[in-house]
Amino acid sequence: MIRVAVDAMGSDRGAGVVIEGARQAASDGVVPAIFGSSELDTGELALVPTTQVVGMHEKPADAFRTKADSSLVRAVKAVADGEADAVVSAGNTGATLAAGLVLLRRVPGVRRPAIAVPIPSRQGPPILIDAGANADCRPEHLLQFATMGAVFAEEILGIARPRVRLLSIGEEPEKGNHLTLEAHALLSASDLDFRGNAEGRDILEGAADVLVTDGFTGNVALKSVEGTIRTLLDSLREEITASTAGTLGGFLIRPAARRLRARLDPDTYGGAYLLGLRGLVVIAHGNSSPTAIANAIRLAARGVDHDVVGRLAARLPQEAEIV
Amino acid sequence: MIRVAVDAMGSDRGAGVVIEGARQAASDGVVPAIFGSSELDTGELALVPTTQVVGMHEKPADAFRTKADSSLVRAVKAVADGEADAVVSAGNTGATLAAGLVLLRRVPGVRRPAIAVPIPSRQGPPILIDAGANADCRPEHLLQFATMGAVFAEEILGIARPRVRLLSIGEEPEKGNHLTLEAHALLSASDLDFRGNAEGRDILEGAADVLVTDGFTGNVALKSVEGTIRTLLDSLREEITASTAGTLGGFLIRPAARRLRARLDPDTYGGAYLLGLRGLVVIAHGNSSPTAIANAIRLAARGVDHDVVGRLAARLPQEAEIV
Repeated sequence: MIRVAVDAMGSDRGAGVVIEGARQAASDGVVPAIFGSSELDTGELALVPTTQVVGMHEKPADAFRTKADSSLVRAVKAVADGEADAVVSAGNTGATLAAGLVLLRRVPGVRRPAIAVPIPSRQGPPILIDAGANADCRPEHLLQFATMGAVFAEEILGIARPRVRLLSIGEEPEKGNHLTLEAHALLSASDLDFRGNAEGRDILEGAADVLVTDGFTGNVALKSVEGTIRTLLDSLREEITASTAGTLGGFLIRPAARRLRARLDPDTYGGAYLLGLRGLVVIAHGNSSPTAIANAIRLAARGVDHDVVGRLAARLPQEAEIV
Repeated sequence: MIRVAVDAMGSDRGAGVVIEGARQAASDGVVPAIFGSSELDTGELALVPTTQVVGMHEKPADAFRTKADSSLVRAVKAVADGEADAVVSAGNTGATLAAGLVLLRRVPGVRRPAIAVPIPSRQGPPILIDAGANADCRPEHLLQFATMGAVFAEEILGIARPRVRLLSIGEEPEKGNHLTLEAHALLSASDLDFRGNAEGRDILEGAADVLVTDGFTGNVALKSVEGTIRTLLDSLREEITASTAGTLGGFLIRPAARRLRARLDPDTYGGAYLLGLRGLVVIAHGNSSPTAIANAIRLAARGVDHDVVGRLAARLPQEAEIV
């Protein structure tokens, strides 16, 4: 039985959506507990009442310091105290990271925890890391992200020798900014199966098992891909329904379009691991649907089941020779 | 009559494709001249024979220094010498920039020329600047890119008061990396109509007239959008043709899909302006089709017709108070 602490208060779409998702994910093996206002109706799920809410736009450090009884901080603390096996939050990512750093602490050797997101590419999901935890990075951080991503791909996705690529602006080693040029040298000298630079256009094509980047670039790239998928599918529907033949055609391709949308929809993954902490943290989109929340909770449970944290801790130091 | 110097040698798809595109663009008002090997068959177009070729992967500075008789350098020089009104190259972007900096020189006050790309968004084409000329930037560079982009949008796209946004990782002013946080402050204090941060998902939605970013992030974002469009349309075709009903439906929606593809295809724009030089330079994709080359040449001609370079030079200093 895996116990997942679910922060119900901080998401864009309200506690009801989060609770609905948690109820969908609940099973014999997965037991979500809702952290939030005592007035919430959680049905058959346990409610851990909390009195404060961390807003999406609050400064992470302030939020953590002043809101010890927030649903977010309490849910993270439940993992630290051994009352839950993992935490899922669709709230303020920075505050979740801040709470994780203080309450769960880093795996020994880890400099910066990073967000690892599975990308819905054409050839299995590659891991994009860091997708937004660290806006400013040094080259050695990128090496460590690559190592964490590789351990994740190996242990959880079952890829024997994950191919690592560095997100840059050209495939040649000399293309990039100061950060990627130095990171390229570090990655080349590492024990990882480093296959060189990848470009933005490679993200959905699945050119690597682990795509490493700083959190600023990773977040922009991820949102660019997601936004393009949404805009494109919406535009296609508009174009199709502009004619009668198109409307009929649209009806006929609907199953195909649905399959594609399901495959590419970020809701399918629902969440991202915050790797590098001594406790399992899954971050969901702020505007997650119930399905996305349910999948984020299942992702958290899978991470516990596969002991992501323990395997990372066991593998990381010798992989990257971190002092 | 607008004379456009066309570098035929450096593109990924060979000189024949470039020449074919130039022939498509040739008209009473637009006269392309082909710069390349004396053995090329340029039909009715003038050929300016050159003996060297700059490869796509050569280091820009080296290529410029050692290949004075390359098609790329000679085509840029033709503009510097007043023999052509604009230059189009689908070759090595870095080398084109290096040649432009030395032979054309910068508009007084401009610190860094930048690549301005029209994005095929849902609401008219916003300008993404910088799309790849400057991998490492300082905040004041971003302010200047924004100013150049705004002048471009105003003078060429006819937008009276262009809305400027900064590409970052959250809409709140405090979200971003060191570079964007400082650039945000500079943009807020400027005379531009600055509307704050935009995210990757806003790119195709047309949330701004000018989307400003450093060349590394801009290039990753642009290629992420382009790659996603391509992968998505290919995947949709695969899903559709997997069933008979879908195949029939696909036939019926083909006109709609074609309209969408035409609207979103990078070939429709064909090229990007390299803004900030005292001569008009248009950079085309390395793997441009003949249509893309033709559109890049037309874009160059439009830039000459609207005197982009002169208007930028006239407007830039007082807009940004550059010393």
